[in-house]
Amino acid sequence: MAYQVQDVCNRFSDLIIDASCTDSWFSRIDSVEGVQSDSLVFISDADSLVNLDSSPAVIVTSAEIASLIEGDASSVLVVKNVRLAQAFIKQQYADYDTADSHWGVIHPSAVIHPSAKLHEGVRVGPNTVIGPDVEIGTNTHIRSNCVIEHSVIIGQNCVINNLVNIGYLCVLGDRVIVRPGAIIGNEGFGFAQDEQRHYHRTPHTGYVDIGDDVQIGSNCNIDRGTYGATTIARGVKIDALCHIAHNVSIDEDALFVAQSGIAGSCNIGKRVIASGQTGMLDHKTVVDDVILVHRCGVTEDVLEPGLWAGTPPRPFKEYVRNLGLGKKVNKLSRELAELKKRQAN
Amino acid sequence: MAYQVQDVCNRFSDLIIDASCTDSWFSRIDSVEGVQSDSLVFISDADSLVNLDSSPAVIVTSAEIASLIEGDASSVLVVKNVRLAQAFIKQQYADYDTADSHWGVIHPSAVIHPSAKLHEGVRVGPNTVIGPDVEIGTNTHIRSNCVIEHSVIIGQNCVINNLVNIGYLCVLGDRVIVRPGAIIGNEGFGFAQDEQRHYHRTPHTGYVDIGDDVQIGSNCNIDRGTYGATTIARGVKIDALCHIAHNVSIDEDALFVAQSGIAGSCNIGKRVIASGQTGMLDHKTVVDDVILVHRCGVTEDVLEPGLWAGTPPRPFKEYVRNLGLGKKVNKLSRELAELKKRQAN
Amino acid sequence: MAYQVQDVCNRFSDLIIDASCTDSWFSRIDSVEGVQSDSLVFISDADSLVNLDSSPAVIVTSAEIASLIEGDASSVLVVKNVRLAQAFIKQQYADYDTADSHWGVIHPSAVIHPSAKLHEGVRVGPNTVIGPDVEIGTNTHIRSNCVIEHSVIIGQNCVINNLVNIGYLCVLGDRVIVRPGAIIGNEGFGFAQDEQRHYHRTPHTGYVDIGDDVQIGSNCNIDRGTYGATTIARGVKIDALCHIAHNVSIDEDALFVAQSGIAGSCNIGKRVIASGQTGMLDHKTVVDDVILVHRCGVTEDVLEPGLWAGTPPRPFKEYVRNLGLGKKVNKLSRELAELKKRQAN
Repeated sequence: MAYQVQDVCNRFSDLIIDASCTDSWFSRIDSVEGVQSDSLVFISDADSLVNLDSSPAVIVTSAEIASLIEGDASSVLVVKNVRLAQAFIKQQYADYDTADSHWGVIHPSAVIHPSAKLHEGVRVGPNTVIGPDVEIGTNTHIRSNCVIEHSVIIGQNCVINNLVNIGYLCVLGDRVIVRPGAIIGNEGFGFAQDEQRHYHRTPHTGYVDIGDDVQIGSNCNIDRGTYGATTIARGVKIDALCHIAHNVSIDEDALFVAQSGIAGSCNIGKRVIASGQTGMLDHKTVVDDVILVHRCGVTEDVLEPGLWAGTPPRPFKEYVRNLGLGKKVNKLSRELAELKKRQAN
Repeated sequence: MAYQVQDVCNRFSDLIIDASCTDSWFSRIDSVEGVQSDSLVFISDADSLVNLDSSPAVIVTSAEIASLIEGDASSVLVVKNVRLAQAFIKQQYADYDTADSHWGVIHPSAVIHPSAKLHEGVRVGPNTVIGPDVEIGTNTHIRSNCVIEHSVIIGQNCVINNLVNIGYLCVLGDRVIVRPGAIIGNEGFGFAQDEQRHYHRTPHTGYVDIGDDVQIGSNCNIDRGTYGATTIARGVKIDALCHIAHNVSIDEDALFVAQSGIAGSCNIGKRVIASGQTGMLDHKTVVDDVILVHRCGVTEDVLEPGLWAGTPPRPFKEYVRNLGLGKKVNKLSRELAELKKRQAN
Repeated sequence: MAYQVQDVCNRFSDLIIDASCTDSWFSRIDSVEGVQSDSLVFISDADSLVNLDSSPAVIVTSAEIASLIEGDASSVLVVKNVRLAQAFIKQQYADYDTADSHWGVIHPSAVIHPSAKLHEGVRVGPNTVIGPDVEIGTNTHIRSNCVIEHSVIIGQNCVINNLVNIGYLCVLGDRVIVRPGAIIGNEGFGFAQDEQRHYHRTPHTGYVDIGDDVQIGSNCNIDRGTYGATTIARGVKIDALCHIAHNVSIDEDALFVAQSGIAGSCNIGKRVIASGQTGMLDHKTVVDDVILVHRCGVTEDVLEPGLWAGTPPRPFKEYVRNLGLGKKVNKLSRELAELKKRQAN
């Protein structure tokens, strides 16, 4: 399939500052390393421009980089934000197809309860199981070997990838992407101890409430509330192998990188970023715009925005100072020895 | 469905100290925040009592809190242990239904080997695969899209949730709950190096032996023994995304919180608690009643009960002292500078 | 089934230095603890020899240990490398059967696109879904409830265990083992932020390129490249619950122990060993023959081979010195107090 540059300009006029050769065509999107003569390529730094061996059909870049381009072999689209242009343009022209249209609309091997309500354009892959009273919004794709338990509500234009389990009563907004192997609405880890110190399970009968534009990573686990909801607000993105415990609340546009774990009833603010393998004890609060790095261990509330690291969490500068503690102690040790020597003389 | 308070009193007489209005009825169990006039609610602290906006049908609480309740709009059940009462009463009246009775007893899409022996009351969900010589005890539910390999023995009243894999020869006791996506009986990580420094896999041909009342969390991985068993004793509870390597032995009533990992051949005592993201090196021993917190890294044996943290594990008080090391060193540094200055004068 | 010792000698003559009683037979391979009269047993240390209660049919051991064996009840195979002999001999005589031959060659419940090309000896288990244009090499087994997306190429003699998802366009070499629940070829975690600070997904359209003799652990996640490949070279072994992000490159014979996570575009050298719960920030380089222990946090490049630990990574000796910092500071503090006292007098 080939696309004209003019089509990009028409669709994404708000992203584009300037455009040349809009009658050019491209048929693929590539990285600088893999560029071909019919490629569209995104260039966000001068080094990448230097590494461009041949002329692609289209270069999408910033005004600054565009000024360095010599020759006019390529159509050049000047954009405000190259990364954002890449996200939108790649979604439009080179995204992977989640429709699995080779399996038809509803695969005959899918097991769908007659009371489930599938709106127009819903696709269901082979061996997927959909329980009673489920409602699935327009154009949502449920791929292969999934299990959607009873009374789940899923919005429009969602993609539920292979081997996903969504537990009863959970609610997903629109444009939610659930990656393969994720478990949503599992029962949380809550027990009561008897006099013999044996543990007895407390049933968790709440649900998980997932907002629009959320992404849940592959093989994640999101526990339902003990009562009420575990809440993942609009725009939150969760990477692979994360654990979100019961009754956690994550506010809009927060990012959790892979293998992070959040214990029960934590409150996470807007745009919080937790880098890989972050951990949080239960009932902790992390306010808006906090960034947790270096496997931060949130054993205390984090009540100021900014960069934090360490266990317990410390402002990043303080954390870095403490990393050098060994050298500092060695220096003190030498000075003290000298002082003692001098005093002895 | 509505239940009379007297029914609770009859069933759980050993938990209940005192009861009023036992002819009242309730039809739901809620948290304080979600309470309605037909709710039963558990109250374990005075704050929750204050936050109770309207009168529920039944309050289950301690003697101390009960003395603070004004008015007699609600039936009050005074219990010895509110958390334990919550576990038992919620299990009885408001638990979720693992029978998936909408799919019938054995779903026709399940693939069950004729040599498998399913006792009375066993339920098998859609697309579940059960291999030869499997034996499944009375009233156990195997839900959807699971794979139970050959010669597995599962006890009575177990729940094997969706998308679970139980490997050949593994043995599960009674009332075991396996959460979705868990892998039990995977081959462990064991290799031998040749002269070219390439690795060759050592087959692991043991099994996993899981006692009664064990819970295995979602997306966990439990490796089988190299020879013999990886042992998870009665009452052990393992949270989501944990890793238990080959030939580990975990004794009764131990708790492993999410994302903890235990390397091969560790010995874990009774009632050990490992908080989230705990790690243990292979062949380590952790004795009874140890509590590991703050992502403890068990690089050495832990041979005394009590609270431990840090890598290597230290008694919690010592660990906390070391957290303040940065400030202590700064103080020393200032004192030393002053001393030098005075000495110079 | 019984095997003659001579058969072992014939097959593995390059491993064996000396052999007695090669006309003996064995019918099982056991550990020292489980030994029976018809067992073959591997003994790699003198303690194990002492713990041997009865005479097994065959002892495979080193020359040094062999010299300690009294009596001639057992056939003794003297080998150069006991661990390596165990790997090869156990693979030959006591490995588990991945053919699931009770399900036939291609189970009728498998959903296989007519354009998929399955070479001779390929087996496909119940409920597995294989998309269009997939090619599967000779004697490869795809077990139950897997999803192989379109255009995947899998080599010969591979084992794809239950509940695995392999994403479109991924390429696997020969003799690759994918453990249950692993997700290969998931989209990476890459987003662009707009002016409202909302995140927009950048489609990841590369693939995962897995070499010969690789093993991917259960419930792992391996992201595809943004463009181009995430590369796992020949002989790499990855344990359970690991995360490998987009465009990571792992060179030959590297080992990643359970729950390790590697962020995007890292370059990992040959024979690198990462112990359990290791973490790496994106774009880091770790050179050949580095060993990362104690949950090392690779926040900086590691450019010298050897043993490293800590966050940031430090040579192991330096890391260990820093572990004793608390005691060292206490000592300094006491010395300083004494010095001040003396000076005051």
